[in-house]
Amino acid sequence: MRILGIDPGIGICGFGLIETSSRTDAKALDFGVITTTMRAPLPSRLKELYESLQEVFKQTKPDVVSVEKLFFSKNITTGIAVAEARGLVLLVAEQNSLPIFEYTPNEIKKTLTGYGSAGKPQMQEMVRMHLGLEKKPRPDDAADALAAAITHALTRMV
Amino acid sequence: MRILGIDPGIGICGFGLIETSSRTDAKALDFGVITTTMRAPLPSRLKELYESLQEVFKQTKPDVVSVEKLFFSKNITTGIAVAEARGLVLLVAEQNSLPIFEYTPNEIKKTLTGYGSAGKPQMQEMVRMHLGLEKKPRPDDAADALAAAITHALTRMV
Repeated sequence: MRILGIDPGIGICGFGLIETSSRTDAKALDFGVITTTMRAPLPSRLKELYESLQEVFKQTKPDVVSVEKLFFSKNITTGIAVAEARGLVLLVAEQNSLPIFEYTPNEIKKTLTGYGSAGKPQMQEMVRMHLGLEKKPRPDDAADALAAAITHALTRMV
Repeated sequence: MRILGIDPGIGICGFGLIETSSRTDAKALDFGVITTTMRAPLPSRLKELYESLQEVFKQTKPDVVSVEKLFFSKNITTGIAVAEARGLVLLVAEQNSLPIFEYTPNEIKKTLTGYGSAGKPQMQEMVRMHLGLEKKPRPDDAADALAAAITHALTRMV
């Protein structure tokens, strides 16, 4: 099964595709980030994001999508922009007729490390180990997207 | 000039088209709401909203779009859903190559009534008067969308 993890964002949106047939044999097939033009008006950035997302779905051909769920804790203005981007992620997944699963940051941390408040370095190390990579995947947003994909594999697969 | 006002929402999204050639001769050409299937999963509702928005833009043929800006004050969970819907509104406006203007609820209230904390009945009465309607436009979300359109007319036109 090909699981596409997505970490929504308007400036940087991470994606990570893993392939897995059991809970623990996940391999990273592809990962990266979509970026949009800084200082461009929001609607134009949303259109860039929408078109890039369509391209990512077309290229990665996932069977299922795992999206990081929005959880407001810090900056509410950033939060609104993330939610606007997240609307597009869910729309594009639905337009591609894919099953969509959502996990909160805490669920993702807990699933990967056993600890809901795990730090970023610990999370990235777990992503690296789970996928048998030599180095931690970069940038952070791509690692977060891979973490969402792994969470789905660990949660839903037998 | 045809101004399409939009009051974003995932369950109910209001729209209102006015035509105007000066600050004060606005006429309502069309208004109503887009609703999505209650209890349907969010991605499917977003797709419904996206397709209905495309249809509204096609039918109303606006020259410019005036969108109510998100302002979190009450329920944060509702706020996230509204932001996800608002992302689609901005996307569709951009896909239609239209100029987009955004006004906060307070700016809209202040422009229509002179008072940033005006109540709903007062706002609806001002919308009715501005557009020379016999009755207050219904439902509320359509009236809010018309208010956003009128705000643009009063703010930007000479």
